[in-house]
Amino acid sequence: MKALYRVSVAAGALLCFAGTNLFAAESLEDVMKRRNLSQKDVLAAAKTYVPTGGRDEFLVFSSGGQSGQVIVYSVPSMRILKYIAVFTPEPWQGYGYDDESKKVLAQGQIDGRNPNWGDTHHPGLSETGGKPDGEFLFINDKANPRIAVISLKDFETRQIVTNPIMQSEHGGTFVTPNSEYVIEAAQYPGVLGRGYAPLSEFNEKFRGAITYWKFDREKGQIDTAKSFSIELPPYTQDLSDAGKGPSDGWSFTNSFCAERYVGGIEQGKPPFEAGCSANDADFLHVINWKKAAEVAAAGKTTKINGHDVISLQTAIAEGLVYLIAEPKSPHGADVTPDGKYIIVGGKLDTNVSVYSWEKIKAAVDAKQFASKDAYGIPILDMKQVLHKQVQLGLGPLHTQFDSKPCIAYTSLYVDSQIAKYDYCEGKVLDKLSVHYNIGHLTAMEGESAAPAGKYLIALNKLAIDRFNPVGPLHPQNHQLIDISGDKMELLYDMPVPLGEPHYAAAISADKLKPLVRYKYGTDSRTERDSAFAVRPGSEKIVREPGKVTVFGTVIRSHFTPEIVDVTEGDEVTFHWTNAERAEDETHGFAVSTYIGNLSLEPGKTASVTFKADRPGAFSYYCTEFCSALHLEMEGYLMVKPKGLVEQVAAKATAGAVYAKADYDKQYKTNLETQGVIDSVVKYILSTNYKDFPTVVALVDDATDQLNFVKDAKAKAEDAAKKEDWQQATLWANQWWQYQVKAADIGLRVKTYLEEHGAKTAAK
Amino acid sequence: MKALYRVSVAAGALLCFAGTNLFAAESLEDVMKRRNLSQKDVLAAAKTYVPTGGRDEFLVFSSGGQSGQVIVYSVPSMRILKYIAVFTPEPWQGYGYDDESKKVLAQGQIDGRNPNWGDTHHPGLSETGGKPDGEFLFINDKANPRIAVISLKDFETRQIVTNPIMQSEHGGTFVTPNSEYVIEAAQYPGVLGRGYAPLSEFNEKFRGAITYWKFDREKGQIDTAKSFSIELPPYTQDLSDAGKGPSDGWSFTNSFCAERYVGGIEQGKPPFEAGCSANDADFLHVINWKKAAEVAAAGKTTKINGHDVISLQTAIAEGLVYLIAEPKSPHGADVTPDGKYIIVGGKLDTNVSVYSWEKIKAAVDAKQFASKDAYGIPILDMKQVLHKQVQLGLGPLHTQFDSKPCIAYTSLYVDSQIAKYDYCEGKVLDKLSVHYNIGHLTAMEGESAAPAGKYLIALNKLAIDRFNPVGPLHPQNHQLIDISGDKMELLYDMPVPLGEPHYAAAISADKLKPLVRYKYGTDSRTERDSAFAVRPGSEKIVREPGKVTVFGTVIRSHFTPEIVDVTEGDEVTFHWTNAERAEDETHGFAVSTYIGNLSLEPGKTASVTFKADRPGAFSYYCTEFCSALHLEMEGYLMVKPKGLVEQVAAKATAGAVYAKADYDKQYKTNLETQGVIDSVVKYILSTNYKDFPTVVALVDDATDQLNFVKDAKAKAEDAAKKEDWQQATLWANQWWQYQVKAADIGLRVKTYLEEHGAKTAAK
Repeated sequence: MKALYRVSVAAGALLCFAGTNLFAAESLEDVMKRRNLSQKDVLAAAKTYVPTGGRDEFLVFSSGGQSGQVIVYSVPSMRILKYIAVFTPEPWQGYGYDDESKKVLAQGQIDGRNPNWGDTHHPGLSETGGKPDGEFLFINDKANPRIAVISLKDFETRQIVTNPIMQSEHGGTFVTPNSEYVIEAAQYPGVLGRGYAPLSEFNEKFRGAITYWKFDREKGQIDTAKSFSIELPPYTQDLSDAGKGPSDGWSFTNSFCAERYVGGIEQGKPPFEAGCSANDADFLHVINWKKAAEVAAAGKTTKINGHDVISLQTAIAEGLVYLIAEPKSPHGADVTPDGKYIIVGGKLDTNVSVYSWEKIKAAVDAKQFASKDAYGIPILDMKQVLHKQVQLGLGPLHTQFDSKPCIAYTSLYVDSQIAKYDYCEGKVLDKLSVHYNIGHLTAMEGESAAPAGKYLIALNKLAIDRFNPVGPLHPQNHQLIDISGDKMELLYDMPVPLGEPHYAAAISADKLKPLVRYKYGTDSRTERDSAFAVRPGSEKIVREPGKVTVFGTVIRSHFTPEIVDVTEGDEVTFHWTNAERAEDETHGFAVSTYIGNLSLEPGKTASVTFKADRPGAFSYYCTEFCSALHLEMEGYLMVKPKGLVEQVAAKATAGAVYAKADYDKQYKTNLETQGVIDSVVKYILSTNYKDFPTVVALVDDATDQLNFVKDAKAKAEDAAKKEDWQQATLWANQWWQYQVKAADIGLRVKTYLEEHGAKTAAK
Repeated sequence: MKALYRVSVAAGALLCFAGTNLFAAESLEDVMKRRNLSQKDVLAAAKTYVPTGGRDEFLVFSSGGQSGQVIVYSVPSMRILKYIAVFTPEPWQGYGYDDESKKVLAQGQIDGRNPNWGDTHHPGLSETGGKPDGEFLFINDKANPRIAVISLKDFETRQIVTNPIMQSEHGGTFVTPNSEYVIEAAQYPGVLGRGYAPLSEFNEKFRGAITYWKFDREKGQIDTAKSFSIELPPYTQDLSDAGKGPSDGWSFTNSFCAERYVGGIEQGKPPFEAGCSANDADFLHVINWKKAAEVAAAGKTTKINGHDVISLQTAIAEGLVYLIAEPKSPHGADVTPDGKYIIVGGKLDTNVSVYSWEKIKAAVDAKQFASKDAYGIPILDMKQVLHKQVQLGLGPLHTQFDSKPCIAYTSLYVDSQIAKYDYCEGKVLDKLSVHYNIGHLTAMEGESAAPAGKYLIALNKLAIDRFNPVGPLHPQNHQLIDISGDKMELLYDMPVPLGEPHYAAAISADKLKPLVRYKYGTDSRTERDSAFAVRPGSEKIVREPGKVTVFGTVIRSHFTPEIVDVTEGDEVTFHWTNAERAEDETHGFAVSTYIGNLSLEPGKTASVTFKADRPGAFSYYCTEFCSALHLEMEGYLMVKPKGLVEQVAAKATAGAVYAKADYDKQYKTNLETQGVIDSVVKYILSTNYKDFPTVVALVDDATDQLNFVKDAKAKAEDAAKKEDWQQATLWANQWWQYQVKAADIGLRVKTYLEEHGAKTAAK
């Protein structure tokens, strides 16, 4: 019955289609035929399409790989919303271009040098009770061992910390259940503190390590003084996960090349890849971080580059570190939502191993060890602590969890598939082919204590034949999969246009509460009041010997000041504050051939300092298309040649000259324009506009613009009284400009109200 | 009848939906209800969705604004495929990080300094016969007057030229019908050659200009020696378009601030925005570029910074430049596909003006001028040369053309609308609201001699309430519109995640023929053979005093060489050639804490030179997830401290040690693996796989991998003969690694063939 009912409703619906599309003249069937779409395709389209102005359900924070950035996109539409600049300077955001953000990037110096790029791998969301809370995002840099903190209030990078002892890392960032620590594990072994030793002493002098960065949530900063590391053997440590629930207080880090092989293909030796994958097993590190924190707090550490390091000897003696055999060349150690199991895949195996925390804990407590490694770390008996091994296919890599109990998804790199299985029972439930060579995967809040289910994303590494070709360097391919049913359904292929993401973290969109605008005069890079903010009317140019400092404001469509005279060789600083209250009224600042770009969102204060070392007349301009007169939002930096004695200017010829008639004409136009504005205002006031927050903000903004009218009008009328028709006409025109800006907003409000079904009292 | 037929077929189709979706258990109606989609939404979804592996119909090249890059996306799916690095260093592409691309960026130095960013505005596709040919893309930098040439063979930047005379530009790039010239117009007036003069002498000493860059298509380069400029009055020149058909040989450039107003709000003067928009009209410049090229070739130029400039006086005397009044504050001068009309909108007007080329030409030929400007340029009578004025609404800005005759679309900034109209008849046909404040718009090949119709894109400047919020800095919003019917239909909202695009150019995807891979050993930045390429087997490390040069290769999953010893203070150069034949097998290169990133697509040779100024043991690694053993693709740069005398190494303790049993076990595994591979090969050979070019390439690649087996197998067996079980086991494992790589490809082929309905002889 139900099926039949559906069909008849659908038939009616399609009739409507044919009826309403008088102009497009294409029915759904026509489109399907023309575009060669199957019914499954249409269903996938309907499941992913977000109509204009609609919101997506989840936000995904994806690493940006070698771009050094973080990518934000939304699910299910898979539309990329933002690239957040983290380790690489990025001018659209002014990141690395304004003085404030240069200070953030400078925190990331390594041994006195700024790499100016990063290889971001594993984003981690701040957690409360094991669940992402939407406050902060952490991201690592594999190339230059560093961690960055991003505020999700404004999606800007707040802090970069450099690892004081590692020369390489990979296994960051992973967060403990209440964001007490951010975990970063080393990758390729090195001499701790980035020292030198020959490779012939690899086993003796090269080491791995794991760093626990203390996070101060109040300050939104990592507290380096309260952070510590544990020395580890020169296995190549890899990814980690923090325990939760029963396993809270512990963390798990896998590794590869437990063979400790040193290659040398140029000397006729087999390459690293052969020697690092020769054995059947590598080691999962099981670490008691809560106890380690106590050991560090008790001062049982060695200082390396001023940083607290718990030596391997101390770690063993204090019972902080244990090892368990794990499948060959693993990549991902993932704790189940209830904290009872740890799942590890090995890329050169066909199984995932599901370890039981209960069994691990029991063996540790009972000191039941199978053996010790070459460095004296106790090794637990794999068979004793294993819950299940599940045969999934070739190349198990990374595991994520469903909202349904016991359900996990593991990516299979070699098979280019995803396996869905029951890890409690050890039973494979479904497999889906992806395109191609999947690395990590991301389920919605799929690594939290309470996964959200619904969708899974395959982060594929190759994109052959998936998209229109764009040269030898292909985009990556992120595939969206519907996991709401029993079988996985492929919904959407998303190309990644910049960078090679490795890992991504997804969060319900409703957990994020970003700022709409900054408090007036905010230094966004520190989230504090800027000392350099000024209010409109208080702008100033401060001159000291060899130094000119501008404290200015921007508002559509002019800079104050517009003309700045300096002398060749001066150090020049511009501090700009965006005086807009309107959402999205971002302005930018660049001085042609000199400096840029500053991005000035409403309320923000940003600065730029440079040497005016080349004489000339250089325009500056607003780099954001902010208003109808955006192009007219300009100024000049006049860099007078050093030693030039300017002659008293010959009487300059004028540009346009205005007479009384011009003033009268403009005045008349303004009165007429006011009439139009009044009618729009009347319409808005007749509606329930206050029910729409977006509209209320726009009305505020329009009111601001109309308030500016008063001043310009007064100046115009004042000049007219003095019969200064030049000034009178120009100010009358400025008055009109404010009207145009207000009308612009008013029209947007009108459209919005009409499209959102506002009620009109008049009707 | 037809409508009824449709309904019954659709009913059947929906019945199928219910029948086949046994697992998803959601019908299209269910999804519509759950996701609150209207029928119009589903139609839009079906019109824009591209199923996995499908191709889009058009490619769009959009400027990336302050990011300094170019954005490539595809229509109708609106998926972003690539950010092409142009003016800003970008590590994913190695752009500005490898030695080769540093040379490209260095071409963009201005007065000895590299801005390391750009404000890209107007991309222009190379044209043949007035139609885009898919060979090259040009893009300008507004902030630092420059033009870049991008090859559409590999979507890489080939050349940057710096304007020798302008201090600011905006109106580039526009291409003449056979790409003879790339047009770049100045924006804010300056002293030509970037000199100094006080603003009090604005009218006398500040100038605008237009540069015609000669393009050498054979070389794929701008020929700066054959390029020239024309001096123009200090009107703020803006956008241009080249004539075509009857108007070929001429170009049209609009301007604003023809008032020549100089602001000074800090001195109590009305701001630029008031004075630059006070008059009712600005000037359209009409320029005879063919004749100007002859004048320049005849040597009637002045040299400024070594560049040929035709003075205003000469330009007037030779009849090269004319002016026509145009609507207030215009932005866009667009020549109709047939070359008969030029359409100009003014952002502070309600009309577009449609000028008749025939009338302009007649007036010029007859020397019928209404007046002259302050600099002596003849001004044509606007009324005499006007074909029509069409009242469209508030803020007409930019015009694009349909494939249907006489149909144009103009963006209305203040109204946030697009107007569709008949410019022959001067009749408005339709209007569509967009969200919000549209700047430019882009129709498919919509500025060519033969527009492709179908779609139109609104490049909106504000994105309030359109997407999930991501902080005060919003993405831009590009809206896709269906123009195939009589009425425009909004289809899709695309956020732009990085940069603020201004203008975009669209081309039929089938016109692009990008490279799949580079010829072995290509320097991609010059598209020539690299002098530093080596073949596998010929890798070498060359040592000179204070200098170490590495000539290496990369192939999954190892570097050759793997270990490079240098001394602190050495200058180190790595030249890497990617020896892969497989599509998409890109490798990367970074030395931890030292340098990165190199992007090495198949066949490419890229280099990096740096000073090894910090001693230590630094790992290097492949920065692209290239294979199952990607993480094992590693090496070490050993920077020995200066003056360190290494003691003869104590006998190092070993890592893993292998015995005969290990070798035998691996040998057995390899034979079994070969069995699996043989069965896959048998399956592939049984199909019509040769009908699928993607598969043929994959089979080639798998064959390569299997060929590597031979060498590793021989080495293993050789060592076994000598009872060197260590080497024997490791080489046996390397042999297995090649098998895994081959199997990986084989499985991908199998999936592809199954999904693409390959025929099997066996069946």
